[in-house]
Amino acid sequence: MANDHLYALIMAGGGGTRLWPLSRRAHPKQTLRLFGERTMFQLAVDRLRPLLPMARIFVVTAAEQVAPLAAQVPDLPRENFIIEPMGRGTAPCIGLSALHLRRRDPEAVMAVLTADHFIRREATFREALLAAAQVAEEGYLVTLGIEPTYPATGYGYIERGALLEEVSDFPVYRVAQFREKPDAATAMAFLADGRYSWNSGMFIWKVSRILDEMRRLMPDLGATLAELSAALEGENYEARLSHLWPQVRKETIDYGVMERAQRVAVLPVEMGWSDVGSWAAVMALHEADEAGNVSLGEHLAVATERTMVFAEGKRLIATVGVRDLIIVDTPDALLVTTPEASQQVREVVRRLREHGREDVL
Amino acid sequence: MANDHLYALIMAGGGGTRLWPLSRRAHPKQTLRLFGERTMFQLAVDRLRPLLPMARIFVVTAAEQVAPLAAQVPDLPRENFIIEPMGRGTAPCIGLSALHLRRRDPEAVMAVLTADHFIRREATFREALLAAAQVAEEGYLVTLGIEPTYPATGYGYIERGALLEEVSDFPVYRVAQFREKPDAATAMAFLADGRYSWNSGMFIWKVSRILDEMRRLMPDLGATLAELSAALEGENYEARLSHLWPQVRKETIDYGVMERAQRVAVLPVEMGWSDVGSWAAVMALHEADEAGNVSLGEHLAVATERTMVFAEGKRLIATVGVRDLIIVDTPDALLVTTPEASQQVREVVRRLREHGREDVL
Repeated sequence: MANDHLYALIMAGGGGTRLWPLSRRAHPKQTLRLFGERTMFQLAVDRLRPLLPMARIFVVTAAEQVAPLAAQVPDLPRENFIIEPMGRGTAPCIGLSALHLRRRDPEAVMAVLTADHFIRREATFREALLAAAQVAEEGYLVTLGIEPTYPATGYGYIERGALLEEVSDFPVYRVAQFREKPDAATAMAFLADGRYSWNSGMFIWKVSRILDEMRRLMPDLGATLAELSAALEGENYEARLSHLWPQVRKETIDYGVMERAQRVAVLPVEMGWSDVGSWAAVMALHEADEAGNVSLGEHLAVATERTMVFAEGKRLIATVGVRDLIIVDTPDALLVTTPEASQQVREVVRRLREHGREDVL
Repeated sequence: MANDHLYALIMAGGGGTRLWPLSRRAHPKQTLRLFGERTMFQLAVDRLRPLLPMARIFVVTAAEQVAPLAAQVPDLPRENFIIEPMGRGTAPCIGLSALHLRRRDPEAVMAVLTADHFIRREATFREALLAAAQVAEEGYLVTLGIEPTYPATGYGYIERGALLEEVSDFPVYRVAQFREKPDAATAMAFLADGRYSWNSGMFIWKVSRILDEMRRLMPDLGATLAELSAALEGENYEARLSHLWPQVRKETIDYGVMERAQRVAVLPVEMGWSDVGSWAAVMALHEADEAGNVSLGEHLAVATERTMVFAEGKRLIATVGVRDLIIVDTPDALLVTTPEASQQVREVVRRLREHGREDVL
């Protein structure tokens, strides 16, 4: 069931330090090839191709990222790249993008998507988007909820309220409340309760609805967006944007809008989603051999178990008598960690920054 | 107490696969810089300098190793390099070298030494050599015994018999018997017993004595050596050597001579000796920081304990949340193992050979 007013907005501005040493300032996560030949960004576009014409896929990113991202998807219209002068959090980013979409199509329904997540069941993802778009047409702000598979403490949760309707076999609920990242005990309780979904950071709504809510809940941002909307019709949009954007207050869409908005719905979906937030997550998304090893690159494993080698270079990596390791090899830096500790990779990046090691950041 | 007839013979022919990926066919163990700027071979010569003039330090090695080794010790006379066309075990190697020393000095006492071992207390080593030389002058075949510090299963042992004499505070014993590498229980018993030393592979004897024993106990080798000795006085030595050496039967000096020889003595010495037989041994010979880490190269350690990084290249190595690892980084190959498993590195080399990966061997 096509929807001619459905547009995708891929947010592709992130930096990301959690996949160091592969991710760098010059090579953010969405540009990495973690799952074969296609980059995360290419995969994010690819999974939309059966659903949308390229003309209705938009990308918001930093100015210096436009050229590399455009090169990765040559058939994506260049005018569909929206430039955000600097990161101000997801709320301003989405608001700015909504202006551009509204200008293209005042009836636009926008699906706010990410460039650096993994989705295994892409058909389910597309069906969920279409179902969510239908609910969005009715005026709801719809969030895609991820059915939790373990008591994660790294995600926000969404508590569902009453069933709103069922669309294409997807039940859609009113949102009872958004919950911040929980501690371990709370996460266990959420998982046991059954009414909680992970907040995927993917949203579907009419651009008119989200802009209305921003005007209401974030009046400063609303005013800035109104001024930029007017400027878009003239010739001084870029100058105004450069002037105004640094003054915009940083805010997330969750805190700035969703937690206080009216008519918010959640559509829980099981689609093999991962935010690929650590090397442990990368490892979990690859099939292991019978010893539990994941060898991406030339890996000679002797008495080795449950170990991932991710080798970007052409070097031979031999492991002998080790288990539960993650080894990431790049031409100028090597990481050896464990699935358990791989979250702490940020600490490496922090220390490198502290030591002025810009060459490997 | 100088000994004008004392000569050192440094055996520097070994290959060695146990320190892969640093050791390669083209870079055998004795050429490695494992303890700072000086190579193992340079250290082996350096520790003799206070004892012997360079004219009395000889080296036996393969033809292709002469140039690189000579370059490392430019003040060592080039004519003191003895070439062995191919490895035939220690007995033929020592016999051939003894011919050259006898020709230089019929009264020579030769100290058979290794190029790839580590000795922390070098003065003690030199005193032991002098004491052993004095016993050798009396006609004994003297072995340097190493006082065992743990129940090693990787070394041969020497059981001492009656006290023979005491020289410069070193007690010297008749050898009761040589024992092959023991199993763990036997090694424990040896250690508890107190009469066992490790066989260091270092020997001191008169060249005339060792050549006599070879003639008696290894008559085939004796005949070959007699022919080569005659050839040494003519012009066809090299041709005869090339012809005869491939036919020589491989044999160790322990099995070929020592276990059956007469008048064999052992001089036990505590001198901080290590055969540097694995990466675990290399790690043990370096001082660790308070977390137990040994960082040779640029190592960024986060929540890391008892881990050695040996980085030959210029790459940054970050470890996060790991313990008890050994990481050896070279430009074309990386090894990750544990102190416990580092003996199994040979298995890597074996598999690489099997797969025809000559480029990293």
